[in-house]
Amino acid sequence: MDFNLITKIRQTNPLIHNITNIVVANYVANGLLALGASPIMADAEEEMADLAQFSTALVINIGTLDPFKVKAMLAAGKAANKAGIPVVLDPVGVGATQYRKDVVAELLNKVKFTAIRGNAGEIAQLAGVNWAAKGVDAGQGEGDVAQIAKLAAQRHQCVVAVSGAVDYISDGVQVATIDNSTPMFPKITGSGCLLGAVLGAFLAVAPSQPFNVVVQASAAYAVAGQLAAKDLGSTKYGQFYTALLDQLGELNDQQVAQFAQVHIEE
Amino acid sequence: MDFNLITKIRQTNPLIHNITNIVVANYVANGLLALGASPIMADAEEEMADLAQFSTALVINIGTLDPFKVKAMLAAGKAANKAGIPVVLDPVGVGATQYRKDVVAELLNKVKFTAIRGNAGEIAQLAGVNWAAKGVDAGQGEGDVAQIAKLAAQRHQCVVAVSGAVDYISDGVQVATIDNSTPMFPKITGSGCLLGAVLGAFLAVAPSQPFNVVVQASAAYAVAGQLAAKDLGSTKYGQFYTALLDQLGELNDQQVAQFAQVHIEE
Amino acid sequence: MDFNLITKIRQTNPLIHNITNIVVANYVANGLLALGASPIMADAEEEMADLAQFSTALVINIGTLDPFKVKAMLAAGKAANKAGIPVVLDPVGVGATQYRKDVVAELLNKVKFTAIRGNAGEIAQLAGVNWAAKGVDAGQGEGDVAQIAKLAAQRHQCVVAVSGAVDYISDGVQVATIDNSTPMFPKITGSGCLLGAVLGAFLAVAPSQPFNVVVQASAAYAVAGQLAAKDLGSTKYGQFYTALLDQLGELNDQQVAQFAQVHIEE
Repeated sequence: MDFNLITKIRQTNPLIHNITNIVVANYVANGLLALGASPIMADAEEEMADLAQFSTALVINIGTLDPFKVKAMLAAGKAANKAGIPVVLDPVGVGATQYRKDVVAELLNKVKFTAIRGNAGEIAQLAGVNWAAKGVDAGQGEGDVAQIAKLAAQRHQCVVAVSGAVDYISDGVQVATIDNSTPMFPKITGSGCLLGAVLGAFLAVAPSQPFNVVVQASAAYAVAGQLAAKDLGSTKYGQFYTALLDQLGELNDQQVAQFAQVHIEE
Repeated sequence: MDFNLITKIRQTNPLIHNITNIVVANYVANGLLALGASPIMADAEEEMADLAQFSTALVINIGTLDPFKVKAMLAAGKAANKAGIPVVLDPVGVGATQYRKDVVAELLNKVKFTAIRGNAGEIAQLAGVNWAAKGVDAGQGEGDVAQIAKLAAQRHQCVVAVSGAVDYISDGVQVATIDNSTPMFPKITGSGCLLGAVLGAFLAVAPSQPFNVVVQASAAYAVAGQLAAKDLGSTKYGQFYTALLDQLGELNDQQVAQFAQVHIEE
Repeated sequence: MDFNLITKIRQTNPLIHNITNIVVANYVANGLLALGASPIMADAEEEMADLAQFSTALVINIGTLDPFKVKAMLAAGKAANKAGIPVVLDPVGVGATQYRKDVVAELLNKVKFTAIRGNAGEIAQLAGVNWAAKGVDAGQGEGDVAQIAKLAAQRHQCVVAVSGAVDYISDGVQVATIDNSTPMFPKITGSGCLLGAVLGAFLAVAPSQPFNVVVQASAAYAVAGQLAAKDLGSTKYGQFYTALLDQLGELNDQQVAQFAQVHIEE
């Protein structure tokens, strides 16, 4: 795998439109800026069509929903599809409530997504596989995560990324594993949400090969996490939160190529 | 007092449902994660009943209100009462506007709270005592804070925690004082709001003795603040913001037992 | 120029009412606290009139809009005008969508602003000058920025501050330049939004000379940025985010007088 997209992001500063939640909006914006992308966070239905005219990717995150935001998500998704830009879905806590299930079902029905990113519990829900989820966290459950990623990708005809100690990415045929875990990621809020936005930034600069691009983006983010955590004690969550932004600013394609543990199987 | 609840939180990772404001949602989520709890932030009326099925505590914070959020708060509070889980109220800036007074009155009327946490100005408002508040900060005023805590606890039949240089906690009969102040707390946003959520996490793992649990939680948080501030200069507010998360991750029951200055009187 | 307003802010802790966006609400509150002001973030139309009774400045930021927030902005602006307190507008991304243009036009039509702060692209939009903006960032464009600041100030009869590598501030007659750039500012989210709120804090303690006060506030903020960045590597965006809060806590008028590069021309 040829790692070259961080360079391209820094050269072109792609504008990423995020409809996201009140918990992580700040961190996602800072993470995208550090990486070299240009974030715009906006969620009024009234301006979704205009933003699709000059955004280069759309990221929809359902972390804190309300009916107005849902209307904006649908309008933005349709406008992005019409404009032909990549669209990423982050179905935060989709298994937790009927409302989230209904909203995600409507989004999947009316918007064509390029990629979906979630934890194993969330993706299992989208794959129609039973999984014991707990709230917005991954929960514990049985099941072959690689298989779940593949099933969800087949069902929704897009690239699916499952985040966890090992990341699994599938386009319905191939499955990539990324084995660069850091135990700090689940201890800060928004680490998954920021990865969803990072997928958007990578897809924005190379929209034609989504599977490879999502693998590359996920590998870059996982390596950034490892490098950010490496000199910190195991409970320095505040420092890790800051160090991850530093690391996203410092990361380059060579580091990703050097440290990424990526394996792809059919 | 036997300090053992941090251990229990880390063992059980209780899921804490927060309806909170746009200013502190991120910090509260990070603080709960650092402590060992599992936060879910959601405020759509549509999903409140579902969340009460598997949450272990509910924390309602009125920092940034709107009519939709108020409906969600009422629905969540009633569902939590029905499910029998602890409910905490943080009446941010309740004295500042008639709208906040009305919303809090309705919440107190329709929801049974286990604990209320606020600064002296806010709790004085709930106790019906005159106090010169200024915005969402404590303001300066006369009055015996211990007495205000006790009156508010009697009036609303729950545990009341007043945050300040000295914390006062009352169940309407007993009053505990916690004398572990750090002057950094009022210089960062959300330090009180995070304490409200921490009360939720402690109550989740020991719901049957709310007075003792709120005292223990408040002592733990105050000790965390002191430890976080101790190597920082007096104006390093940014570093303190980060250090408090680190410290919530590192804190253990032994440290709380060692450093907490708790006195209880009837 | 006599620099003395940081001292005055620390002495009087002015209460600054912010209607702001979900991305920066936390950072703006922390920045104002660090500086010595007292922030209140509230955006329910129901409480805007009450807040104007005891706030000392109002800051309206359109970063994440919705129709309810717009109603609150109009109500708050009118109430602030009636109460005679300074009002600051931060027209985030105003050129990006028709909705933002319409909202800002309505705000400018119905509320009298003391100062407007934006980047060159945003202020060019308000001056009626063509500028190639990109999203909420400044974009690249031609045009004399000093002239754009002056035109916008004349058109809207208030002080206009254009943020960038060099800041330009005009009251329609005079133009001040502040040459204390740090390249870190555009790499963190909310650095401009926080400056808008800082203008509010400075205007709150000296409302009678808005041009001089906006110059002084902008110089103080630019110096804080330089001091915060000076010991950091060029990609340490996370550390800069934290260091800027530290620096706003440590900054004093003497430092601003020593380091500020301010030039005023008619």
